[in-house]
Amino acid sequence: MKRKKIVTIGGGTGSFMLLSGLRKYSVDISAIVSMADDGGSTGVLRDELGVLPPGDIRQCLVALSDSSDVLRELMNYRFEIGGLKGHSFGNLFLSALEKIKGNFPSAVEEASKILNVKGEVIPVTNDNIKLCMKLSNGSELNGEAAINKNETIESLGIQKNYLYPKARANKNAIRRILEADLLVIGPGNHYCSVLPNLLVSGIAQAIRKSKATVVYNCNLVNQKGHTEKFNLNTYADMINEYIGKDRLDYVIYNTKKPSQRLIEKYENQRALLIDFPKDTKRKGHYKVIQADVLSGKRPNFSIADKLSPRRAFIRHEGDKLAKVLMIISELGEYENMIKEIV
Amino acid sequence: MKRKKIVTIGGGTGSFMLLSGLRKYSVDISAIVSMADDGGSTGVLRDELGVLPPGDIRQCLVALSDSSDVLRELMNYRFEIGGLKGHSFGNLFLSALEKIKGNFPSAVEEASKILNVKGEVIPVTNDNIKLCMKLSNGSELNGEAAINKNETIESLGIQKNYLYPKARANKNAIRRILEADLLVIGPGNHYCSVLPNLLVSGIAQAIRKSKATVVYNCNLVNQKGHTEKFNLNTYADMINEYIGKDRLDYVIYNTKKPSQRLIEKYENQRALLIDFPKDTKRKGHYKVIQADVLSGKRPNFSIADKLSPRRAFIRHEGDKLAKVLMIISELGEYENMIKEIV
Repeated sequence: MKRKKIVTIGGGTGSFMLLSGLRKYSVDISAIVSMADDGGSTGVLRDELGVLPPGDIRQCLVALSDSSDVLRELMNYRFEIGGLKGHSFGNLFLSALEKIKGNFPSAVEEASKILNVKGEVIPVTNDNIKLCMKLSNGSELNGEAAINKNETIESLGIQKNYLYPKARANKNAIRRILEADLLVIGPGNHYCSVLPNLLVSGIAQAIRKSKATVVYNCNLVNQKGHTEKFNLNTYADMINEYIGKDRLDYVIYNTKKPSQRLIEKYENQRALLIDFPKDTKRKGHYKVIQADVLSGKRPNFSIADKLSPRRAFIRHEGDKLAKVLMIISELGEYENMIKEIV
Repeated sequence: MKRKKIVTIGGGTGSFMLLSGLRKYSVDISAIVSMADDGGSTGVLRDELGVLPPGDIRQCLVALSDSSDVLRELMNYRFEIGGLKGHSFGNLFLSALEKIKGNFPSAVEEASKILNVKGEVIPVTNDNIKLCMKLSNGSELNGEAAINKNETIESLGIQKNYLYPKARANKNAIRRILEADLLVIGPGNHYCSVLPNLLVSGIAQAIRKSKATVVYNCNLVNQKGHTEKFNLNTYADMINEYIGKDRLDYVIYNTKKPSQRLIEKYENQRALLIDFPKDTKRKGHYKVIQADVLSGKRPNFSIADKLSPRRAFIRHEGDKLAKVLMIISELGEYENMIKEIV
């Protein structure tokens, strides 16, 4: 049987989880990765060395790497003291490779060989861009890090969300989207990881044109000041809007409640679990797959990770997500018989 | 035929050259490496992260690595701007591995696997030590970097040259010395790379006990303020003195003159080509092998290498040195027939 071609579109940690689950199946994986990150270790390297953002790419490379546990651990290692504090070793690895090879795509290719990556990790664009946002009151947010920490976005409203300068899609990303059997969008930070991919010129068009089944892994919690009023349909509608077509076939919604302790932690941040209003009429044709895709593990943050206060404690479980996705990819002719999967 | 066991004893760049030549032969190579370095990128990492000195080890690993050219180039790559400026990527690699594995020997072992190292790279000691020197006027020099740049050592005279705290030899270093067929000391910075190995408790004793043929690769130029009055015999005598026995069987002396331009460059630093006074009676029993072992290549220094003003422009050619060493190792029963090789 022909191996299924699965393409993921996302960013850092969300894609890491997802790919760590998917890699266990006999499928061809291409991970298309946002290039908008400019915070933390990645931000320092972009500023100081003028390199393209390594952080999200690194996480996807590690997720798909078939090398030794030590090498994979090394790539995610963060220096904890001194002048190197906060730097992820894997980011330095990619940035040094970029300097040696002269460009980022060759660096990613070389890193994939060194790390024995099964599948393909593809920067969504090879252009050096910044994520920008113009709010309705006219104020401008420059850069992903500035946007990520701004808590007035939802209350003020977004006038324009764009990349500067304009980014052209990596040709390989377009080819993989067009060839895909299954296209998986998310999970990941809504404005800062997932949507920036769809802002790259050529990506949305390719998704519209592709014959793939398109799945959206909706996030688990809303983000304070960004998406507090969102529900499952709001997210899905916005993804369709950025694609420019009613393109989502499935949306995966987590039904497993996290522990009360974690929920309270999030409520303090006004970032609540995402609601699925079952009786509302949907704009799109997507079916909602309700399943337990929640991780039971507590994530381990490095004490040197300056972004850890912004990282999610309530997370997807890659293995569970992958299993649901494999079911979807195997539905084939039975697809139309299914109204909803609970 | 049984593969010859060759053990090199040295430091960074000198060992790199030598090993790059030796690796082309079917021999078992063990590189014993000084752990006294505390300058440049290595010094910053020792200070800030509390790790053992990675720089010299890295160079030997790269020399013996059978991995891709890119990976080897990456290991020697130096960041040129920003907060990482001057750091060698390979040093960060070893230091991060040391943090993950919890100790330096395991880090070196793991790095050897990742870099597909043919042979063995052995830190002369696993103790965290500093090279110290007490001069005859009572002044104390603490650390290899302080000693390296001090230009009064020869004029004032050395009262004591020691490691602090006392270092115990790596057991594996002792085993390899005892098993060796050929033991190759140097080239390398006399006080700062070569001799520090012999200050480690157990190393000199093992060399005295070993049945190996012992060769000393004498340096090409004297060092300003350190060894300006030295000739070939002074060097050889001091090596024998530190070993504690008339142990050197061969000393290799370069006969090829470097270009006038390079000589003038060195003369400006009062660091002259080392002389071989042929008519002098030697203290030791060593035979002097006179050969062209000079490198014709101009070394490439990174602009970010803070130590480059102290690095040698007049260098050994690894391939030539290795060829001479292979001749020596094959002499066998003919050894006694040879009085001198010119």
